[in-house]
Amino acid sequence: MTLDDLTTPCLILDLGVLRRNVAGMAAAIGRHPGVALRPHLKTAKSRDVARLAAPDHGAITVSTLAEARHFAEGGWTDQIYAVGITPQKLDAVAELNAAGAEVKVITDDPGAARAVAAHAGPVSALVEVDVGEGRGGLSPDDGALLEVAAALGPRLAGVIAHAGHSYAARSPDAMAAVAEAERAGVVRAAERLRAAGHAVGIVSLGSSPTALHARSLAGVTEVRAGVYMFGDLFQMQLGTHGPDGIAATVLASIIGRRPERNTVLLDAGALALSKDRSTEKAPRDYGFGLVLDRAGHASFGETVVARIHQEHGEATGPAPLPFGELPVGALVRVAPNHTCLTAAAYDRYHVVDGGERVVAVWERVNGW
Amino acid sequence: MTLDDLTTPCLILDLGVLRRNVAGMAAAIGRHPGVALRPHLKTAKSRDVARLAAPDHGAITVSTLAEARHFAEGGWTDQIYAVGITPQKLDAVAELNAAGAEVKVITDDPGAARAVAAHAGPVSALVEVDVGEGRGGLSPDDGALLEVAAALGPRLAGVIAHAGHSYAARSPDAMAAVAEAERAGVVRAAERLRAAGHAVGIVSLGSSPTALHARSLAGVTEVRAGVYMFGDLFQMQLGTHGPDGIAATVLASIIGRRPERNTVLLDAGALALSKDRSTEKAPRDYGFGLVLDRAGHASFGETVVARIHQEHGEATGPAPLPFGELPVGALVRVAPNHTCLTAAAYDRYHVVDGGERVVAVWERVNGW
Repeated sequence: MTLDDLTTPCLILDLGVLRRNVAGMAAAIGRHPGVALRPHLKTAKSRDVARLAAPDHGAITVSTLAEARHFAEGGWTDQIYAVGITPQKLDAVAELNAAGAEVKVITDDPGAARAVAAHAGPVSALVEVDVGEGRGGLSPDDGALLEVAAALGPRLAGVIAHAGHSYAARSPDAMAAVAEAERAGVVRAAERLRAAGHAVGIVSLGSSPTALHARSLAGVTEVRAGVYMFGDLFQMQLGTHGPDGIAATVLASIIGRRPERNTVLLDAGALALSKDRSTEKAPRDYGFGLVLDRAGHASFGETVVARIHQEHGEATGPAPLPFGELPVGALVRVAPNHTCLTAAAYDRYHVVDGGERVVAVWERVNGW
Repeated sequence: MTLDDLTTPCLILDLGVLRRNVAGMAAAIGRHPGVALRPHLKTAKSRDVARLAAPDHGAITVSTLAEARHFAEGGWTDQIYAVGITPQKLDAVAELNAAGAEVKVITDDPGAARAVAAHAGPVSALVEVDVGEGRGGLSPDDGALLEVAAALGPRLAGVIAHAGHSYAARSPDAMAAVAEAERAGVVRAAERLRAAGHAVGIVSLGSSPTALHARSLAGVTEVRAGVYMFGDLFQMQLGTHGPDGIAATVLASIIGRRPERNTVLLDAGALALSKDRSTEKAPRDYGFGLVLDRAGHASFGETVVARIHQEHGEATGPAPLPFGELPVGALVRVAPNHTCLTAAAYDRYHVVDGGERVVAVWERVNGW
């Protein structure tokens, strides 16, 4: 099977790039002896990718119950389900754990913590700490931190933070500063809990930028990151990887041509690419994605998907498009702004390894 | 089964609202004797919805090969696949048609038209006409219109237009004006082809706003529309339906609370809601969705999902939230900006009929 045998739009994953990204993150975390990597599978949602990113059924992070189940059944038992838990979801988690998994949940809420403590099944939780993003989590000095830990009692598994505001940084120094705030905050929370007599096993932090740019991880036991596996145009502009670090692209066909507007119409629109516009405020605005040639190379300059509809993408750019090479039916690839969102439209990857031959088809677990 | 038995986030479909929306569109098209409605299933992607919107296996429109196959196998054989065809996709269409379906494709390209004409299997095509949106299609007076029709020869099935720019209109009069431009354009194209000796069976146009607001459909044989079935915040602001016309909402749980910021965190984020921001330029900006109570009522004023992450939504608004009624685990619903994109994240509908009891579960066909 080659690219020509696929129905477009579909999702292409380049194995060589994926392997290189995985090795790069392993090397970055390897700079910090005693600190483990707990890859986040929210982007990949695939056991085949987990085999590379978390080999030997290593520790992982997940973002949905569907992922937790999928990976637990695949042998990845050491998990953190890193979205604030509700009491109603504890039965499902406890059921996985009773079958041999160790899915740890997270919370910043005293009521949810009491529900964890009171649950009849095996379930433990980390306390979520806010290190500056202002999404979920308690500030390291918040009094409620001790209240939540006390409510969990022996079911306290540790503390967890995510410096999502690292995505607003635009230089290695700025990211290192966010990484240090993330480290200091989560370690400060752990120390306060320990001073109050709690055992704090896990001290977890992470985002792809802070994982790569952290200068010290003193006091931290593990780092979580996910998007680094595939990369995207936004991460590229953050400096998380180079221009050759995007492993996942959308294969699309030309379905219309407008030479007078220097535009081609693609069969990849809002559903195939997502409406993510994260590059809007990055140094370079790539619209809804950068158009590459069928081999994945930037042969069309800065041609981007400028406008999208449900199943249509309008691609245009400053350089004249080579219409002679782009009849209706010709293939191109689109590099995504935000690979987590783009990948979620697909139930599988068509895996290539630098060429046009499809060397594997890997399933994804979408939904909740 | 009730709402309390569901894992959030999930997609709720209110049967009463759906029936009313379907009846409203039937009445609007009924004003034009001799004009048929060919519902677009790109939003619903469900045979159960098709049973209501296109009863007795009536004519439908689809946006993917996956939909074409799903509905053909379900008995809806009279279809238009309304996204520009590529030569590579003709085998799949011809296979459906050889098995009894009549899936018509569309094109505005001479090369693709020649591929249709040359295909060994049963396949016919409509010529796509641009009536002002500037997406796909040839202008009614473009010389290429006759070239494409001539290339199709006896496989010419008709002409088709979509006034997607009706979404930029903001009043019934403005929409009626776009509808008239849509009608005049597609009829002009049909007349030119007939004058050149072609039989033009189908003269098709449509978008939900123009379908509802068209004053004359003289010369038109059928109207296509889809989003009207479910409605959304954007369509509501266009006047396509009233505030009680949104049939599809996302059921979400509170996963965190920040009274000091008047914010609750939901387990419905970018994947559960989509990143569509179509209400950004509408009269009222609803962020990533309007937060309703668990019964689907606007009990929280103009509380919206203001910020989203992959699995988190941050809901806030001008009125103080009733935190006493919103502990972690409490249910809310989110009305979507753009229901076509939000629904695509789910593989099924949980159907209610005004209450909290789940009266049915309906499957969707996503992907390509």
